[in-house]
Amino acid sequence: MALTVVGSIAFDAVSTPFGSRERMLGGSAVHFALAASFFDSVHIVGPVGDDFGEEHYEFLRARGIDTRGIERVQGGKTFFWRGEYSWDLSERRTLDTQLGVFAGFEPRLSDESRAAQLLFLANIQPQLQRQVRAQCRGARFAALDSMNLWIETERESLIETLGEVDCVMLNDSELRELTREPNLIRAARMVHDWGPGVVVAKRGEFGAALLTREGFFALPAFPLETVLDPTGAGDCFAGGFMGYLAAHPDEELGHELLSRAMAYGTALASFNVEEFGTERVARLTSEEIVQRVADLGRMTRFVAAPVGLR
Amino acid sequence: MALTVVGSIAFDAVSTPFGSRERMLGGSAVHFALAASFFDSVHIVGPVGDDFGEEHYEFLRARGIDTRGIERVQGGKTFFWRGEYSWDLSERRTLDTQLGVFAGFEPRLSDESRAAQLLFLANIQPQLQRQVRAQCRGARFAALDSMNLWIETERESLIETLGEVDCVMLNDSELRELTREPNLIRAARMVHDWGPGVVVAKRGEFGAALLTREGFFALPAFPLETVLDPTGAGDCFAGGFMGYLAAHPDEELGHELLSRAMAYGTALASFNVEEFGTERVARLTSEEIVQRVADLGRMTRFVAAPVGLR
Repeated sequence: MALTVVGSIAFDAVSTPFGSRERMLGGSAVHFALAASFFDSVHIVGPVGDDFGEEHYEFLRARGIDTRGIERVQGGKTFFWRGEYSWDLSERRTLDTQLGVFAGFEPRLSDESRAAQLLFLANIQPQLQRQVRAQCRGARFAALDSMNLWIETERESLIETLGEVDCVMLNDSELRELTREPNLIRAARMVHDWGPGVVVAKRGEFGAALLTREGFFALPAFPLETVLDPTGAGDCFAGGFMGYLAAHPDEELGHELLSRAMAYGTALASFNVEEFGTERVARLTSEEIVQRVADLGRMTRFVAAPVGLR
Repeated sequence: MALTVVGSIAFDAVSTPFGSRERMLGGSAVHFALAASFFDSVHIVGPVGDDFGEEHYEFLRARGIDTRGIERVQGGKTFFWRGEYSWDLSERRTLDTQLGVFAGFEPRLSDESRAAQLLFLANIQPQLQRQVRAQCRGARFAALDSMNLWIETERESLIETLGEVDCVMLNDSELRELTREPNLIRAARMVHDWGPGVVVAKRGEFGAALLTREGFFALPAFPLETVLDPTGAGDCFAGGFMGYLAAHPDEELGHELLSRAMAYGTALASFNVEEFGTERVARLTSEEIVQRVADLGRMTRFVAAPVGLR
């Protein structure tokens, strides 16, 4: 099944304790699209400016991504973000945000993008997410990401948008902030009541949890000795997760399939953070993905051999 | 194999957003012993005062725990701790600590306690831990817990003690603080170099990770809708973990057995936090433990079905 992703296409300047990059291709839609491209056809939708060159289109097309949904605004500038990470990468600070062409973005999806059966609404204004959702009525499974900014400034609008999707992927802390409920199980149940039957709580280096109406599933992050840049990890997780669903059109979109998708999301996110920006995922191979998922399986599987308890 | 635990036996006053208790039996050795008692014989060692009554001995004996190692100090008072937890239970504040008989504690182990094949050195001064270790030369597997206080005030002594044990169980953040290394894999490797080949990183509501020289294993915490009091969760984890090892004397003490033990540690910790102090574990049944471990297995197991990647 094809996937459509709508979100930011950006240039990022990132500084971590392990190095820095002054200008690299980034943005939620880019990270998602690259990760999902290993599984099925991806249509990427988002605005760019004159500074988005042919080499950037080529970079995405090289992974088979359909770039016709990229809206190039004459005289505009591509969204720009500059951030720096703390010594242990646990916190990040935004130093500069230049919305550029993103300020006046009005998503208009092509027929191909509208026809996709899976839709990912990356972190943009909740109202824009609803506009996109309305254009993709036929999507069998729609997921969204969001952030503390929208929870704090547009909570009602975000909750309205939740009513239009099947899955919400948020950081653990954002989920608590959104629901005003510290207990994750109760928080997920509130989200279920608002509409989405699938909640993915992203936990950074502690992995991710899946909470459906059927049950709970969780995985740790893949253990890495070298993490250079966490930027885009959440979007790569979403790309691997949604991509895996897209690759299994004949299976029921239930707890079991979603649990397997969690492993692929975890794998893609782990590759992403090994290097800066898109550097690692751009030269990733499908063999490496398969290997990492198998390794992750071994690192979480235990056989509860019978034990005589007293 | 029998287990010996040396640590605090205490009365706790605990306040959480969900209630409070003015005086309940607690302490690291108590929580550990109760959890481990489901698996094998447990010898508990620690000092108490006159205020430690027959009913408290009885409470422990009812779970088959050998209480002869409890040293009752005439005219002394049992260790007392008062603490309160934040609204989401993620932080706790110590309001009062009265060392009582713990101030002059000089561990002297009985022959039975010395003969145990598994030894758990709960969170006490590193130098006392070494004294105990020296008395239990025959222990096949010794583990220790510690805390930020000792890392900050007696780091060198703690590292010396690490050289005498096989396993260290610390909170994720304590492990980073101890090794001054933010990356968990590298931090564990440093600990391996100091002696213990087994590192357990406790991650609170995110579960726990096992890092041996053979590899990595991790589990999420068991998802609970109701958490009343996290006090003692780490010690119950240790009790379930060590208890499981004790119950498998014929198996190699390697990565695979330790991984299974992680599941039992996770289960015991999860029961502990469901109610205040020892209330839940005191009426726990072995059937409930078996059921929870099976549930945890389902919540973490995924089958990586083949997927055609591009």
